[in-house]
Amino acid sequence: MKLQNIKIVMVGTTHPGNIGAAARAMSNMCFTHLTLVDPQCPVGEIAYARASGANAILDQRETCTDLAQALADCSWVVAATARRRSLAWPELTPPDLAARLTGMDNTTRTALVFGREHSGLTNEEIQLCNYMVCIPTNPDFSSLNVASAIQVLCYEIFQRQAAAPTTVRSPETNDLPVPHTELEGYFEHLESILQMTGYLDPQQPGMIMQRLRRLYLRSEVTRNEINILRGMLSAIEKQRR
Amino acid sequence: MKLQNIKIVMVGTTHPGNIGAAARAMSNMCFTHLTLVDPQCPVGEIAYARASGANAILDQRETCTDLAQALADCSWVVAATARRRSLAWPELTPPDLAARLTGMDNTTRTALVFGREHSGLTNEEIQLCNYMVCIPTNPDFSSLNVASAIQVLCYEIFQRQAAAPTTVRSPETNDLPVPHTELEGYFEHLESILQMTGYLDPQQPGMIMQRLRRLYLRSEVTRNEINILRGMLSAIEKQRR
Repeated sequence: MKLQNIKIVMVGTTHPGNIGAAARAMSNMCFTHLTLVDPQCPVGEIAYARASGANAILDQRETCTDLAQALADCSWVVAATARRRSLAWPELTPPDLAARLTGMDNTTRTALVFGREHSGLTNEEIQLCNYMVCIPTNPDFSSLNVASAIQVLCYEIFQRQAAAPTTVRSPETNDLPVPHTELEGYFEHLESILQMTGYLDPQQPGMIMQRLRRLYLRSEVTRNEINILRGMLSAIEKQRR
Repeated sequence: MKLQNIKIVMVGTTHPGNIGAAARAMSNMCFTHLTLVDPQCPVGEIAYARASGANAILDQRETCTDLAQALADCSWVVAATARRRSLAWPELTPPDLAARLTGMDNTTRTALVFGREHSGLTNEEIQLCNYMVCIPTNPDFSSLNVASAIQVLCYEIFQRQAAAPTTVRSPETNDLPVPHTELEGYFEHLESILQMTGYLDPQQPGMIMQRLRRLYLRSEVTRNEINILRGMLSAIEKQRR
C-alpha cells in the first residue's frame, strides 16, 4: 500500500483551522491527498497558519460537491465515526484498519471519511462506505476534534506501515551492555569496597549484594557505564590508602 | 494503572489554543491531570474555546515554575520528543509506553512531559526523565503539534488499557520505584561523594553525572535499593572522616 493512495476526505467542515490542522497531521504521517466535500469555510490564512508549513497539501487539495463524487475512484472506503447508528455498519478498530490498509497492493485507491464538526456523517454518507472505524474514547466525552481524529488514524496507519521493514540503529560498542564476566568483576570489586567501608558485614551480609545484583542486571549496564562505576570504586579505594 | 495517576505535563507552552486542545484530547481519553510548567500564555477564552467543554481539566490544572517541581511526586517519567540528542536517552515506542504504563499498579504516579512548540525540551529537562518516547513521523516533516502529540499518546494508552485485563498485582511498597525527589537526593549525595574522593573534578565534570543519571533513571530504583545506595554513600563518608 502507498500512503499517497489513501485520500483523507473531510465532509462539510466549518472551521478553517481544522482543515489546516488536518493538513499538518497528514504531512507528519506522510499522507498527501486531501479532499474537501462541500466545505463550509474558506481555505485561507487561518488554515495555512495551522498547517504550519504543510502548504503543499492545502495547495493541491481536491474539492467536491458531494461525497459520492469524492469516492468515485476509490475501491475501499472507511467512515470515521464515534456514533452508533440505528443501522449498524461493519466496524473496524483503528489497528484493524491499519492492518487492512497495510496489506493492500500499491495500486488500490482508498479513502478515510471524516464528518462535520457538530453532526458527523449522515446515515446516507456512511452507507457509501465499506466500513466504519471507531476510535475508542471516554464515553462521557467522546467527541474528538476532527483534525485529532485524522491525526490518530494517520498515526496508526503510518506506524503500522513503518513497522513492516525494520531498520534498527546499531549503537556504538560503548553503549552496548557489557558481557556478564565484566559485570561479575564489578560486583566483586563493589563487595570488597562495601566491606572495606564497613557497610557490609561479611558475617551478616543480608540481602544487600543480591539486591544490588538485581538492580544492575536489570539495567543492562554498558561499557561506558561500567567504566564509570569501576572508576568510582577505584577512587574510593585510593582515598582510603 | 489509573489514567488519573498519569500527569500530562506541558513545558513552556506559548499558545493557549494548544493548552485547550490538549485538555480536550486528554478528556477524550479519560486523562484528568494537566500540569503546566512555566506557561508563556494566559489560560483564558482561547484555551477554553478549544477545550470544547473539557473545562474541568483546565480549572483543576496545576502550575509549576520548573519541571523538577512538577515531577517531584512521580516515580516514572517519560519525555515526548522527536529529537535525537548527543547523549542518547533510553527510548520507548508509543506502544511500548502504553504497555509499560498498563502494567503498573494503581498507586504509582507517573508523568508524560511535552516540550515547547518551537524548541521542545532541553537536554537538562530530558535528563530528569526515565525514558524518551518518540512518535514515528515523516522524516521530512516531523514536528507534531504539541496537542496532537498528546492526543496520539493518550489514545495509545487509553486503547491499550481498554484492551487489558483489569487487575494488576500490587507489589510491596519497598519494591516500587521511589519518587523523583528521592532519586534527586541520591544524585546530589553521589556527586558530593565523587567530588570528595577526587573522582569527579568540579571544574571538569565531563559527562559522568549525566551517564550515572541515565543509568539509575533507566533502572527505576526501588525503595529497598535507594536505601542500600544511600547507605553505601554514608558508609564511605563516615570512613573518610
